[in-house]
Amino acid sequence: MDTPSTLDMPLEEAMMTQRAIRRLKPDPVDDAVILKVIELALRAPTGSNAQNWEFIVVKDPAVKGKLARMNRQAWNIYGGIGRSIANRTGDEAMKKILKAVQWQADHFEEVPVIVVACLKAVIPWFPSIAASSAYGSIYPSVQNLLLAARAANLGAALITLPLWSRFRAQRALGLPMTIAPCAVIPLGWPKGKYGPTTRRPVGEVVSLDRYGNRAFLE
Amino acid sequence: MDTPSTLDMPLEEAMMTQRAIRRLKPDPVDDAVILKVIELALRAPTGSNAQNWEFIVVKDPAVKGKLARMNRQAWNIYGGIGRSIANRTGDEAMKKILKAVQWQADHFEEVPVIVVACLKAVIPWFPSIAASSAYGSIYPSVQNLLLAARAANLGAALITLPLWSRFRAQRALGLPMTIAPCAVIPLGWPKGKYGPTTRRPVGEVVSLDRYGNRAFLE
Repeated sequence: MDTPSTLDMPLEEAMMTQRAIRRLKPDPVDDAVILKVIELALRAPTGSNAQNWEFIVVKDPAVKGKLARMNRQAWNIYGGIGRSIANRTGDEAMKKILKAVQWQADHFEEVPVIVVACLKAVIPWFPSIAASSAYGSIYPSVQNLLLAARAANLGAALITLPLWSRFRAQRALGLPMTIAPCAVIPLGWPKGKYGPTTRRPVGEVVSLDRYGNRAFLE
Repeated sequence: MDTPSTLDMPLEEAMMTQRAIRRLKPDPVDDAVILKVIELALRAPTGSNAQNWEFIVVKDPAVKGKLARMNRQAWNIYGGIGRSIANRTGDEAMKKILKAVQWQADHFEEVPVIVVACLKAVIPWFPSIAASSAYGSIYPSVQNLLLAARAANLGAALITLPLWSRFRAQRALGLPMTIAPCAVIPLGWPKGKYGPTTRRPVGEVVSLDRYGNRAFLE
């Protein structure tokens, strides 16, 4: 597999073809590739330029097993709800996603590398702007990581289910209480393919000056 | 000013040279450019592919004025704290940021376009995974917007200060209580330049398997 030294895919192409790749081969991924996508993650902005992030690269089967168990615990509840809604509404796109997430849950231990993005901060509940600023200092880097993975043809997806209990996730990863795990990104060479995604037209989600003023609807 | 129809800057170059551009020219920005960067924002992932975002494009001086006032109110307190820390520690990088943020606060009304990224969701405070999943459905799109702006040579920065009171921000933007404004991105042609940023080495923020195992330190 190629491990490009620079990720020179055009920005728009990377964005237009980024999608969650959940079915991953168990083949190992070079540390150089993993460090490269994390290096680009670190280029994202953080509030007051604090760069107060920590990334845990999980390859040890024992630690992976703990994350896999927590993921399944949450998925057993959440996925069951999702399936019953999808069956009732007959939503085929949702059924497809649910099947991929089920596959991911069943094969979590075989994923070669799992990256956990953490914030070195006690995230406040109040005021809302403080929580938004905190998560706004980690998710831009997660998105850089996902885009870099896409440009490297490395499969990736953003999930949070393995973190349903922050306390247990912290214990599994040896994190002190002052470091909050926020997002989990399983990485590996894809079984499937990246490709164009579908989205609602931009005019439907943009308002001019005041909410609901759909000035850009075509 | 160019308004490229595709943003084909190589991904890595866009990421390596993305920085907060706060000093913006008052010159207008074509709607086509604004819609283009928001279109690419919409390519980011959302939890359960809900695409439950709303983007308010603010150009009306009256609405801009309200956001400018809220920004200054928060900045008067927060900036004062920042300045007294920077003066005590003599942190020159921080002083530079503070000056740029002060400029932004003083010239907020002159910024041609202000985008407010919102989540169509009541963001729960508990459990932490629910809040993280919610913000994880808006900040990846914000980062796409910032990267797309960088590729278009459009100045941009991610701020949250104008949202210090969610209620007042909602009132200013005509948002119902069920839509949460999360991040503000002032956009305009830059007075300054994009360019390489400095970051801590990746080995200092990455642990292998358990927090603190700095296996990739050089």
